[in-house]
Amino acid sequence: MQVPASYPRKYLNNLQKAVLDFNGLSILEVSHRSQDFIDVMEEARENIKKALNVPAGYTVLYLQGGASLGFLITAINMMRGTKKAAYLNTGAWSKAAIKEAKNAGLAVTEVASSADKNFNYIPKGFAVGNDFDYFHSTSNNTIFGTQLHQFPKVSVPHVCDMSSDFLSRPVNVADFDLIYAGAQKNLGPAGAAVYIVKEEILGKSSYANIPSYLNLKIHHEKESMFNTPPVFSVYVSMLNLRHLMKNGGVEAMQKRNQAKADLLYGEIDSNPLFEGTTVKEDRSLMNATFVLKDNALEKEFNDMWKAAGIDGLKGHRDVGGYRASMYNALEIGSVQVLVDVMKELAKKRG
Amino acid sequence: MQVPASYPRKYLNNLQKAVLDFNGLSILEVSHRSQDFIDVMEEARENIKKALNVPAGYTVLYLQGGASLGFLITAINMMRGTKKAAYLNTGAWSKAAIKEAKNAGLAVTEVASSADKNFNYIPKGFAVGNDFDYFHSTSNNTIFGTQLHQFPKVSVPHVCDMSSDFLSRPVNVADFDLIYAGAQKNLGPAGAAVYIVKEEILGKSSYANIPSYLNLKIHHEKESMFNTPPVFSVYVSMLNLRHLMKNGGVEAMQKRNQAKADLLYGEIDSNPLFEGTTVKEDRSLMNATFVLKDNALEKEFNDMWKAAGIDGLKGHRDVGGYRASMYNALEIGSVQVLVDVMKELAKKRG
Repeated sequence: MQVPASYPRKYLNNLQKAVLDFNGLSILEVSHRSQDFIDVMEEARENIKKALNVPAGYTVLYLQGGASLGFLITAINMMRGTKKAAYLNTGAWSKAAIKEAKNAGLAVTEVASSADKNFNYIPKGFAVGNDFDYFHSTSNNTIFGTQLHQFPKVSVPHVCDMSSDFLSRPVNVADFDLIYAGAQKNLGPAGAAVYIVKEEILGKSSYANIPSYLNLKIHHEKESMFNTPPVFSVYVSMLNLRHLMKNGGVEAMQKRNQAKADLLYGEIDSNPLFEGTTVKEDRSLMNATFVLKDNALEKEFNDMWKAAGIDGLKGHRDVGGYRASMYNALEIGSVQVLVDVMKELAKKRG
Repeated sequence: MQVPASYPRKYLNNLQKAVLDFNGLSILEVSHRSQDFIDVMEEARENIKKALNVPAGYTVLYLQGGASLGFLITAINMMRGTKKAAYLNTGAWSKAAIKEAKNAGLAVTEVASSADKNFNYIPKGFAVGNDFDYFHSTSNNTIFGTQLHQFPKVSVPHVCDMSSDFLSRPVNVADFDLIYAGAQKNLGPAGAAVYIVKEEILGKSSYANIPSYLNLKIHHEKESMFNTPPVFSVYVSMLNLRHLMKNGGVEAMQKRNQAKADLLYGEIDSNPLFEGTTVKEDRSLMNATFVLKDNALEKEFNDMWKAAGIDGLKGHRDVGGYRASMYNALEIGSVQVLVDVMKELAKKRG
């Protein structure tokens, strides 16, 4: 359910107003060079710093192209003398990142992978040697329903794709040299991606002639205005960040996300008709994946949750079954609706 | 004036509605995999084909990253055996395109340039040899106020950056192998770029291991949904295209744009206090650049147009003076306001 982020109606109302009137113009008509928009961009960047306690020496950038372009941008900017990179393979998004690192000319070592069990767990206890330009991880795996609740300690720079759990919990930014995230899960509308970059990594790539748009150093020097930014996406994410900060920041958000996940996983574990598909300790707070033990009940269950107004609960074809996505903006009441349907099915067929 | 596109209020109202309710969800919450959004994307792509009479054998794609990423994408996708490209240099945007072609590994020949006269004209009568992978032009030059009213005939594939006059006039698409345009002038909000691609060029690049996001073949195969597209930008551009088609298409748009330009250039030429900065036959219908003959009148003129409610008339620092941008959505009444101010100044000081 709730495939992209859902939004509090309160700020959709603000947004609706801005479509017709943002300081006299439609937000769609505002020049990205106007002071009004520069203020929006700065507030968005500053609030990301505040939300995640980003330490001094890091810059926050808005780019376009989502994480799919980010796979390439991070590889190019982190390439150093060895041209070797270590990747943790926790599923489809890790594999996509590995592919683009190879396209960029890096030799990629999968230092650990959970492919042996269809990515239903997060590998742990693996070693990452010192002879890599960087180590790359994917913090949350939307398709398989797993999440890194602890990040491995590595001695090389750590690059992390946080697209699907960005701003869902506190993160110790100092542990990373580069964090990137497509906006569309917890931050704002599709079309923007955020990069949190340790400034000392800029300008150190060994990639020959980095194209301008792919060069984080240029975006940093131009204060995220190298070219026309995705004005509307940045504006909405600024409103979203304002809302987040007024409501206790990522610490409070984590508690709400934990409560939602506890409610749903509690039902999955106690309901005799269902079972989760992932190892318990690696369960994602963002995407809960589960199956019916008896496939014969599938049609009945599907009819019930659809009748209850739930949308998009079908699991990804690589896993099957069901996937409930519980991004930041999803209210616990919506999780309760699903839990009630599961309970009702158990009462009838359990 | 009017730096990004301005929008008819009628469809801003539609848009405002969609922020709260697009088939039951906010347009910001719609999954890009939903049929509702697939329909939006297809209507947008189809209407671009209709508007420009795009012949069979061409595909229309929406990407992110604007023309700035397009400079790189076009170079990479058009690179062939010679790794040599011919560029027409008509100003800042051409130079940016040339830079990224070089970054991509192409040897660039400037087959003609108007740098000798600060880009105040369009070079003509130059030859482009057969020994290039492609020829690149910039159809309209926002900073210098020039426009290609006729495109040179070349025997190699023609690639054109139409960012700042896309959909402002009919274009014979069959003359081009690749057209690209950032959305933010005449099409929709910043954050999307359109590519019109002759399908037979796909998959023929000599660039080794094209990164997925930069590969037009992948975007074509995925029907412009390789990754999460900029949903909102595509939606707004779809509304804009619908509006364009209902109002006579690009043929009627060209007439309106010609009328606006005639009104303003007529005043520039007849008013004793002003002069245009470009060669008359190459004047842009989108961006009129002009100066005061007597700089002493600058403050008075600036105060007058600001008092008349005009915004953003200052010329780019590379040209100085004034620049009136008259993209599709600008009404002729707004041009009249400027013309009236110019007339008034002449009455007082002429």
